[in-house]
Amino acid sequence: MTYSELSEQIFQKQSYLCVGLDTDSRKLPPHLLTEADPVFTFNKAIIDATIDFAVAYKPNIAFYEAQGPRGWESLQKTLDYIPKDCFTIADAKRGDIGNTSDLYARTFFDPTAAGLAFDSVTVAPYMGHDSVMPFLAYKGKWVILLALTSNVGSADFQRQIIGDQELFEMVIETAKTWAGPDQLMFVVGATQANELKRIRELAPDNFLLVPGVGTQGGSLADVSRLGLTKTGGLLVNASRSILYASDGTDFADRARAEAKALQLEMAHHLATIS
Amino acid sequence: MTYSELSEQIFQKQSYLCVGLDTDSRKLPPHLLTEADPVFTFNKAIIDATIDFAVAYKPNIAFYEAQGPRGWESLQKTLDYIPKDCFTIADAKRGDIGNTSDLYARTFFDPTAAGLAFDSVTVAPYMGHDSVMPFLAYKGKWVILLALTSNVGSADFQRQIIGDQELFEMVIETAKTWAGPDQLMFVVGATQANELKRIRELAPDNFLLVPGVGTQGGSLADVSRLGLTKTGGLLVNASRSILYASDGTDFADRARAEAKALQLEMAHHLATIS
Repeated sequence: MTYSELSEQIFQKQSYLCVGLDTDSRKLPPHLLTEADPVFTFNKAIIDATIDFAVAYKPNIAFYEAQGPRGWESLQKTLDYIPKDCFTIADAKRGDIGNTSDLYARTFFDPTAAGLAFDSVTVAPYMGHDSVMPFLAYKGKWVILLALTSNVGSADFQRQIIGDQELFEMVIETAKTWAGPDQLMFVVGATQANELKRIRELAPDNFLLVPGVGTQGGSLADVSRLGLTKTGGLLVNASRSILYASDGTDFADRARAEAKALQLEMAHHLATIS
Repeated sequence: MTYSELSEQIFQKQSYLCVGLDTDSRKLPPHLLTEADPVFTFNKAIIDATIDFAVAYKPNIAFYEAQGPRGWESLQKTLDYIPKDCFTIADAKRGDIGNTSDLYARTFFDPTAAGLAFDSVTVAPYMGHDSVMPFLAYKGKWVILLALTSNVGSADFQRQIIGDQELFEMVIETAKTWAGPDQLMFVVGATQANELKRIRELAPDNFLLVPGVGTQGGSLADVSRLGLTKTGGLLVNASRSILYASDGTDFADRARAEAKALQLEMAHHLATIS
């Protein structure tokens, strides 16, 4: 999916909601456990319930890997089920030396390898440019690079001062020399709203993927005020607050209600930038 | 496997060789391609050929993921085949917020999850302490944290100055407050021999996992001189130089010869520290 196609989807759906498919096999509604593939059945219901309100879906790869080969099958089926006009993110936080990153890129981008064709993958910056370039070699595919994450541990290294800036700012400035905004997004935690203004100045045209709204406590209003641009420029992720709104037979209805509430607030924020 | 058990294995086998199972399905000897599981058949032959000379095996997870569910089955079978007196490393470079790292830890450590029970996993430090602690919560299991990697991109962020030290030094000092040498190793590329002396001073008791000898050009003599301790303290990895020593029917014999040559040099270096 291109930058302009993603932007169009955002204004058409009046939403920059990304639904995080952190589907934990231990938290599924009990009535689904007799299904042949409970994880896929759950994801299918969540996608159906939220499709009117979401522009992106982000399977969290850890939750599928923890199921072994069966989990990878659930992941494949889930990705195939997501409508093609939605942006898809493999939340994998990968990054390794070149020949290994090349394999990770094949895994998530080349459907002839592991059967997956995501639009994007999240990548960790610690190993530098040659750990990221193999992902960028796939034209039309995106890297979503960790910049300032939502967890408390982000203070350990990301907030350390190098010269006149913090490490996460250096990561953003450096990565901008590797690719344009048509292939590069940054992860910025919603719990880091104080820093969003500086990040938007450093990366005025890049999409920001913002997790941490909902269960982790970030404010959608703050994130939207500081992060939205004329092209949208934001994907705000919610996972647990949607997936586990209920563990009863009404889980999909409750997920839909949660997604709709977020979309309505997003439509309000989008109105302020036009 | 405990610290002392690993140390014992090193002196018993007179080797600190780790064989990296970066098994690329596209590089297998052609005569294996008719096997039901060519990757596992290849790994089995490599393990049989090198077991007298290696104390550790390190499957590179990217190469298995790129095969989808089939790759995870090859990985399970490979891990099950490695003798229990060898140290096993899931080279995965994982790291995410706590609830996600918890799932990655389950994937690689808890055999009731994905069917895998590695001794250790490689972890990226960028997201800080709460991205690493879920791995350390598994008593008897190890985190091998990226410190200074072997690729040129290591200069981009790892070598940046924070206060009076470089980022990789800060990572080592900070991580030492998270766990003792019985659960924490560091990745230090063999191409970074100039820095090994400083790293050994910062982490006198931690094992160092050193990739980059062989194809990547690092010197085993330099690494051994600067990194070996009275308990061994080193695992030196070789992957491509062993796995792809030949693509003919003699691939296992050639792999054995490569591993034996490294072990003989290691025995020589071990003799200098006793």
